[in-house]
Order: sequence, then structure tokens, then C-alpha cells
Amino acid sequence: MNPIHLVIIGDELLAGKRQDKHLQRIASTLAKRGADLTTCESIRDFPGAVTETVKKNLAPNTLIITTGGLGPTLDDLTREGISAATGTGLRFDESLWANLKQRFERRGRKISDSSKSQALVPEKGSFFQNHFGTAPGLVFECEDFPNSLVVALPGPPRELNPMWDDQALPFLAQKYQWPAPPNRILLRFIMAPEAGIDEKMRPVLVNYPDVGLSSLIRIGRVDVTLSLPSDFPNSIGVLRGIADATEDKFPKHVFSRAESMDTEPDPVSDLEEVVMQLLRERGQTLSCAESCTGGLISKWLTDYPGSSDVFWGGLIAYDNSVKANLLHVSEKTLAEEGAVSECTAHEMVKGLLTDMSTDWGIGVTGVAGPGGGTQEKPVGLVYIAVGNQKRIETKRFEFPGNREFVRELSANAALWILWRRLIGEKESGT
Amino acid sequence: MNPIHLVIIGDELLAGKRQDKHLQRIASTLAKRGADLTTCESIRDFPGAVTETVKKNLAPNTLIITTGGLGPTLDDLTREGISAATGTGLRFDESLWANLKQRFERRGRKISDSSKSQALVPEKGSFFQNHFGTAPGLVFECEDFPNSLVVALPGPPRELNPMWDDQALPFLAQKYQWPAPPNRILLRFIMAPEAGIDEKMRPVLVNYPDVGLSSLIRIGRVDVTLSLPSDFPNSIGVLRGIADATEDKFPKHVFSRAESMDTEPDPVSDLEEVVMQLLRERGQTLSCAESCTGGLISKWLTDYPGSSDVFWGGLIAYDNSVKANLLHVSEKTLAEEGAVSECTAHEMVKGLLTDMSTDWGIGVTGVAGPGGGTQEKPVGLVYIAVGNQKRIETKRFEFPGNREFVRELSANAALWILWRRLIGEKESGT
Repeated sequence: MNPIHLVIIGDELLAGKRQDKHLQRIASTLAKRGADLTTCESIRDFPGAVTETVKKNLAPNTLIITTGGLGPTLDDLTREGISAATGTGLRFDESLWANLKQRFERRGRKISDSSKSQALVPEKGSFFQNHFGTAPGLVFECEDFPNSLVVALPGPPRELNPMWDDQALPFLAQKYQWPAPPNRILLRFIMAPEAGIDEKMRPVLVNYPDVGLSSLIRIGRVDVTLSLPSDFPNSIGVLRGIADATEDKFPKHVFSRAESMDTEPDPVSDLEEVVMQLLRERGQTLSCAESCTGGLISKWLTDYPGSSDVFWGGLIAYDNSVKANLLHVSEKTLAEEGAVSECTAHEMVKGLLTDMSTDWGIGVTGVAGPGGGTQEKPVGLVYIAVGNQKRIETKRFEFPGNREFVRELSANAALWILWRRLIGEKESGT
Repeated sequence: MNPIHLVIIGDELLAGKRQDKHLQRIASTLAKRGADLTTCESIRDFPGAVTETVKKNLAPNTLIITTGGLGPTLDDLTREGISAATGTGLRFDESLWANLKQRFERRGRKISDSSKSQALVPEKGSFFQNHFGTAPGLVFECEDFPNSLVVALPGPPRELNPMWDDQALPFLAQKYQWPAPPNRILLRFIMAPEAGIDEKMRPVLVNYPDVGLSSLIRIGRVDVTLSLPSDFPNSIGVLRGIADATEDKFPKHVFSRAESMDTEPDPVSDLEEVVMQLLRERGQTLSCAESCTGGLISKWLTDYPGSSDVFWGGLIAYDNSVKANLLHVSEKTLAEEGAVSECTAHEMVKGLLTDMSTDWGIGVTGVAGPGGGTQEKPVGLVYIAVGNQKRIETKRFEFPGNREFVRELSANAALWILWRRLIGEKESGT
């Protein structure tokens, strides 16, 4: 594999003003094509810095990708910097300039002469059209290293991302003959500890040293990707065998599986989508009553377009008066058991099913902290009720961590319980 | 200013598996101390890579900070790599080892011999205690560059961040005599376009070329920081003058101002906190009825501990039946004006004030997209009503952008309108 260096140009990252958005995107898309990033360097936007960094990394059979510094202002030094480093001159491309002028005219604006730099392209090399901005992407060949390239991409993500996906990445994969992407299976886990996943998968994987395993963790969820080169004997069969064995070990935790075995990968669904799809298939509806999660579950569900089919609404019952008046949690329960109790969670769902008239209801009540905990009801204690007119089940959790953790784990656990009910009823044929 | 290089060690970033969390944090905390990061490089975790990168960056009067690769496993090569690059040997520190053993014993675990690497520290240099993990931070002096240092920090943020803030940063600021942090004023804007802020501030700033200006943008909000070296004549006065002039130009948009003029900076509040504090001061309460924002406003408010004082609850009225049954929006309004209309927003707040019995109510209804738009009611059309028993005001917006944008702008606009009402009533003495 040839060395690949990413150079991110601009002062903002090094001054701590922005979070970088390029490294993970470029690295992960390269990884899917079987190519590995060797280094990534952020450098300042001053004369000479680009030239110096490109020169330092140039070597035989090397690819250097830069982002940023291609705009029309005097600060934008990338074009000239790479030209100096590679020894490849720049030429003015009349057709690019004509295109740019047209674009401006269509919007009723006049292009200034300072924009002429946007039509400068390498004398030896090529360029990518920018459909979302003015600066084209530039491909510089190198005087001294005939098989090396420097590819300059614009900085704004909405310009860079489509140019990278649609033009640069396919061009580079062909040029450097990167291996075909490996076969992959993604398994998505809910509420399963990473250590537990690792422990149960290890005995399976020990027989397959060629299978790659990577995991991505967020609060309450783990994505595990199994991969194997597509030219490995029975590659697809081996991966499916391991995925099946893993699903068998975690029947209550693997909510989604997506294979990427050839050109058209399976669509990847998150838990919210899986749950809403299960409801949609039955023509059923859902509502939520949230106390400690304060709207998080509703927010997650409504992040998805079309959620209004199945998600009818929610109640955020932060104050006890709302639990009593709008959810009809009885004064007796609130007084005797308290707002954070099994009975309250249960009655919250009962209230929902009546007033929202949905098929399913979720009720969450707990102590998110940092304040409000007691000896008997500590921070992290959460009751979650999920059910329909036939049966409401309530579970008690003690979650570790800070307010954000407790809230996110609670929301995850609620969707998890609902998903298990829906799956269980599907399997038992009801 | 001496050159400062950050080297992030580990394969995960370059494989695209994780988003980097160190660069922005270290860069921004350095910037506040008046120190600038020169470069930041992510490198892979293989033998020789650390040595090569440190060597390449070593120069007179240079600081190199590394993160990661200090753990007890064979993959952790940072310690030896830096030792080879600097020519500074490692010694086994008996007291560190004794401490480590104690920590393990207190938890009823036995420490393994492989952990002995955790007690290796530079022969010339010093180390920082790790209060949240086993690997100490290491300060290497350099054979060839007496005024240069290589500082190795652990990779996990919960270990690195406190070690950096409490030990490494103060140590380095003193060692390199970084200038005192500049005086700063932070102005936080809501629903003001960045270009408009820039345009109105430019005429003020033109007379003060020494004043630094930086802005941080998220959807609907802009943070502007003005800075001036503390030894500039009348530094505090000049900054306050500019900040006052800016606030005068944006009386309806600057919701928070925080000065950092000496050791104890003002606490920084976000809009949710400002609004809830205004309510708290008057002993008033708030509830929300959200349609297109689907719980986002409630989620934002309840992100803050103690929000239950003022935020009593919310209703997510996604389906029309919920708008009708729970918020008492009239069938006539829904039929004649539609769910996305001024009347519906108004009646949502009326319903809230009755049923939730709060002093204030917020109602949001709109078309978040991507589906659901019509010629008459396009994606991005949002009505927001805010009010109390005396007066409910309703505003119409047409927001640009995708679903996420429309939802976030709607939530911001709703809080903005409430904030302006609260401020207005405060000023008019009611």
C-alpha cells in the first residue's frame, strides 16, 4: 500500500476554534476502500508552510491530500504552495473561467478579477469540478516522483465531501489500484457492555485470525464490524457464520445487521428506525411520557423524517403536577411511592394509552442528577415502563455516570425494552 | 513564542474509527494562555513512528506534546520512542510503583508485572501524577536542546484533561514564560446572522487594530470573543467600550456577556440558562408544546440540572389528534387553517397555559421536511407562539436548510422570543 498523507490547512483548528471534520471522514472512506492513512497533519496557513509540509512528505509512490486554502483571497496559499513543492506550474484554464463567470451571472452577480485564481490548474495533472462552490479540486503530478500525486481539495465540508466521494476517491482508487474493499458485516448492539461482547466473540474469532474486528461505541450502543478480504476462501460464508454465531449469543441485543459484500451495501438502520419500522409494519402507534429524559426519546424518534406515521406525541412530565394532571398518576402513588417509582412509571404509561390513544406507550422516571439523589433513591435510579393495553412491564435500573450518561442510558433502555417486546410478539406470532 | 507541536499517537484516528477529541481542547486552552500550536500530527502506533516524528520536530526552544501510547501493553511504545528520540533514558521510580500497587490493593486486585512500565519515568525531567488512571504524564528533557521538552500525556480524555489543566499547562506556562492571558470579553448572540455581526462590528473595530476578534458558530448562535493584551494601555476600558457599542447595536440578540479580565473569569451562561434564570428570579414557570421540534426545546432545557424549578413539562404534539385532545386546538382551526398555522401555534400555547398551569408557554408548529412541504406551506415554514395569560404573540418564520437546521433554528427562535419578552417586561418594569 502506498503512503497516504492528509494535510489540513488553516489556522482555525490549531487555534482551537473549530473541531476538525475532515480526518474521520476521509480516513473512514479510505479504510472502506482498503487504503490506510499514514499520517494526518494540521498546519497553519502562512506562506511557505504548505510548500514545506508537502516537500517533507513527498516520496516515491506517495499520495498527499490537502484540504483548504483554495479560495480567492490572498490568504489562500495552497495552490502556489503545492506548485512550488512539486515543481508543477499552474496554467489558466479558459473553460473553467467561462463556467465560473456563467455561474455568477446566473445569480445576477459580477465576478471580480481576484477570482481568476479559481481558474488556475496544474500544468501537469488534472482537476475536479466543484459543484457546490468556486474552487476546483486540483491534482498535481510531481517532477521528481512520477508515481506520486498531490490532490488539493476545498475546505468547506459541503464542497469537499461530494467532490471526494464522487470524483477524487474513485479516481485515486483506480490510479493506485487499491484492493477491492473487504467484505464486511455490521452488527449493532443495544445495552450490551463492550467487554461482554468482546468476551463472547473471542472464542469464535480465535479460529479465524484473518477476520478483522472493529467497534465503535456510543453511550448504550456498540457497532461491531467484522471484515475479511473478498478474495479469502469462502469469505462471505465465513463472515456470515461468525455473525450468526454472534447473533445467537446476543439475541436480545443485536438489533440490526447490515452486510456489505459487493457494490451495493445493505442500508444501515439505527434502533429508532428499527423500532418505528416494526410499528409501521403493524400499523401501530407510540407515545412517550418522559420525566428524567426530558424529551430525549421524543427528540431521537423525531430526528427521522416520516416518524409522524407512528410517533404521535409525547409528554414531558417534569413537575409532579404534570404527572398528576396530564398523565393521571394518582396522588396516592405520588405521595406514597414517590415520583421515582415502579408505580409511577406504570401509571404514566396507563395515562398515555388513554389520553394519547396510541397502541404503545413508554414511561420513564428517574433521578438524573447531579442533585436530587437520596440514600433510598440514588442518582442513576430509573424506572422504565413499556406496554400496551394488554400488558405494561416495568423495569428498574441503576445507571452509573453523570447526568448526560443517565439520561442517554435511560432513553436507550426504553427503546430497547420496546424493541424486545415488538420482536418477542413477532416471534410468538401475536 | 516557542514552537509547539502536538503529536496524537494511535491507529484509531487514522483508520477513521473515532473523532479526535484532543486537538481542539489542547489548542483552545493553549490559546487562552497566549500560546499557539504550530502543528498537530496524528501518527500510527508502530515502532519507530514516535521516535521519527519527535526527532523531526525537535529544535531549539521547542515544546512537543504527545498523547496516547503510555499504557501497560506491548502496543504502548510512546515512552521508549521518546526516550530514543531525546536521548534521555528511563528509570524505574520505586515510589510511583508503590503507589500503583497500593491503588490496586485498595480495589482488591493484584498488579501484574507487565504494569511495571507504568513506573518508568525520564532520567532527566519530571512526571505528573495520574489521578484517574495508571500511566503518569512524562516530561523529557533533551540531550541536544537544553531548552526543549517532550511532554507525554495519557490518551483517554478523562485522564488527560485533568492532568493537562491542573499540572501540565501551569507547569509549561511557567517554564516557557508564556505571556499572561489577554483580557477577553465574550458576547453571545442568538438568531443574528454572522455576516450582520461582522458588518456592524467592523466600523467599531477599525479604530482598534490591536483588538483580536474570533467567533464560534453553531446553528442559530454565534459567540464573539474580543481580546486585547492585558498590558495594552487601558486594555479593560477599550474592550468594555467595544463590547458596550456592540451590545447597543444588537440589543435583541446579545443574551450573555462574560468578561475574563484577570484570574477569575465570569461564568459563561447559555441561552437556556439565561431564560431559566430570568424565570427563576420571578418565581415563574414554563411549559412547551412542540410539533416539528419534537422535544428538542424540552431536551435543551432539561440538559441543565435544576431545570425542574421552572420547566414543568412539555407536550410533543406530533399527531393532530394530540394537538386536539391534549392541547385543545379546535377542530375548526385544524381543518380550516391547518396544523401548521398561526392559529394552531396560538391555541397550542393557550392549551398549555390551561392544562400545565404554567406562567409561560411556548408552542411550535412547522414543516421540518424533507417531506410534507407544499407550495403554500413549504419545508422550513414554522409558526412559533410564546406567551402568558396576558398576551400570546405568534411569529412566522421561513427557515432555510435541511431537517436538522429547521428544527434547531425553530428551537432557537422559540427561546429567543421568550427571552426578549422576559427582558422587555423587566425593562418596562412589569
